[in-house]
Amino acid sequence: MSQIAAVIGLGLIGGSLALALKQYTEFSVIGYDDCCQTRRLVEQSGEIDRVADSLEGCVTAADIIFFAVPPGAVVRSVQQAAAYLKTGAVVTDVASTKGELLLAVPPLLPPGVHYVGGHPMAGSERTGFAAANAQLFCGRPYIITRHPGIAQEAVAFLTAIAGQLGALPVVLEGEQHDPAVAHISHTPYVTAAALTVLAGQGEYGGLHLALAAGGFRDMTRIASSNPDLWADICLTNSAQIRQTIGRLKELLDTVDTQLADGNRAGLREFFQQAKQLRDACQNRK
Amino acid sequence: MSQIAAVIGLGLIGGSLALALKQYTEFSVIGYDDCCQTRRLVEQSGEIDRVADSLEGCVTAADIIFFAVPPGAVVRSVQQAAAYLKTGAVVTDVASTKGELLLAVPPLLPPGVHYVGGHPMAGSERTGFAAANAQLFCGRPYIITRHPGIAQEAVAFLTAIAGQLGALPVVLEGEQHDPAVAHISHTPYVTAAALTVLAGQGEYGGLHLALAAGGFRDMTRIASSNPDLWADICLTNSAQIRQTIGRLKELLDTVDTQLADGNRAGLREFFQQAKQLRDACQNRK
Repeated sequence: MSQIAAVIGLGLIGGSLALALKQYTEFSVIGYDDCCQTRRLVEQSGEIDRVADSLEGCVTAADIIFFAVPPGAVVRSVQQAAAYLKTGAVVTDVASTKGELLLAVPPLLPPGVHYVGGHPMAGSERTGFAAANAQLFCGRPYIITRHPGIAQEAVAFLTAIAGQLGALPVVLEGEQHDPAVAHISHTPYVTAAALTVLAGQGEYGGLHLALAAGGFRDMTRIASSNPDLWADICLTNSAQIRQTIGRLKELLDTVDTQLADGNRAGLREFFQQAKQLRDACQNRK
Repeated sequence: MSQIAAVIGLGLIGGSLALALKQYTEFSVIGYDDCCQTRRLVEQSGEIDRVADSLEGCVTAADIIFFAVPPGAVVRSVQQAAAYLKTGAVVTDVASTKGELLLAVPPLLPPGVHYVGGHPMAGSERTGFAAANAQLFCGRPYIITRHPGIAQEAVAFLTAIAGQLGALPVVLEGEQHDPAVAHISHTPYVTAAALTVLAGQGEYGGLHLALAAGGFRDMTRIASSNPDLWADICLTNSAQIRQTIGRLKELLDTVDTQLADGNRAGLREFFQQAKQLRDACQNRK
């Protein structure tokens, strides 16, 4: 009999996970969503094995459970499921920050059930199961976090699954995760939002946005994302984001001083450093 | 006999202009570049009517002359060409800043020759004639600047040509140009460079860049551009860029305070404002 994967929350990420697990792995896939309309939509799609009527019913027999609920709802959902988890099961999530979860989730779990943090670095400006697709994780990093006392086989289990989904698994120590995403996701999003507001405000805002060409559009695309989700994400990682914003402002001050001094060599060196780092990042793709 | 368009400087922008003028307009197209290897490359391509041996020889009979040289070289090139321009000719450029040129260029020109500032908002991380293509301007804004005493028919001439190239002509008063591009091009570039340096520096820099997913790559793509060109561009618009950096830092401070206060409603409102502005910008495309 095949192993069972349960997905709690069938929005963009959870829905895509469910589709990808069904398409690329041998798991039987069971899903659940709090919203009855979403449950009906997924059921009618016929694309996964079963849609459960309750969270408890969804997790009972599962070998791995993906909690793909909003970041603020993970702890509550795990709490609700805890008593129904089978021994040996692996619990994971898809939240963009891990500091709180690494402290809160393990103590909630019964003996023999393992927590491994997961963060697929994939998304879209679109939301909901209607936007879900099995290829969402292809070629994208999938961060997997370790913490003291974690079972190595649980880490290996999730790592193998992420690989089957076409993602690029990257195992990090738990405490490395939140500073990393502050640098490469959260602060860049905040900055894109700020650049958009800056360009759009004031007497000539409409003119600026009408003129915006390719570079500006690329830089600010992410500012079209869901503001509610980002407010939640930012609040779960506020200390790291604030530190990163502080360092970004220092770098902007460096450029400001070079501009004030007409320091062409300094500007060129700063821009050259950025180019080298960005080109290296391109080559890794 | 057809009218003649001259293009001085046959790099990415000048080369693309020459190709597009040949492909989409009735002009005879003559080109010149300071670099003899570039001249030979363009001549061998056979894609324009003639490559001149000298700047003077290139402009003599031209009805419109595009100075597509680096921003710091426009004034010098116009000076060199001035005595050879034919009465009624229109002189234009492709520089990313206009403040200095609007003051410096008109007095250099003989009576009956008109200057109209031009700024096609198109580009690429690649450089040189080898990267040039006739479609570079399609669907992109092409800013055309007016200044006191300008001949209206000269503005109309360049506007019509920009339209024939498939670009979207936008006529601005000269003094509106530099603040606009500080907002939608120069400061976004500086910020992309700063975000890249920030993510890449320190103990975990390599890890951060290895993890960088779609959003970060989109935001920082422009940081791969030519550092020399950007050092020049930034220095020609330093006052406006410094002002814009200052206002960007104020907006980042707003977010920082909201994070410190756990002000979810404030964050959400800021992000929502950004989303509305960015979505409107998308719809204009």
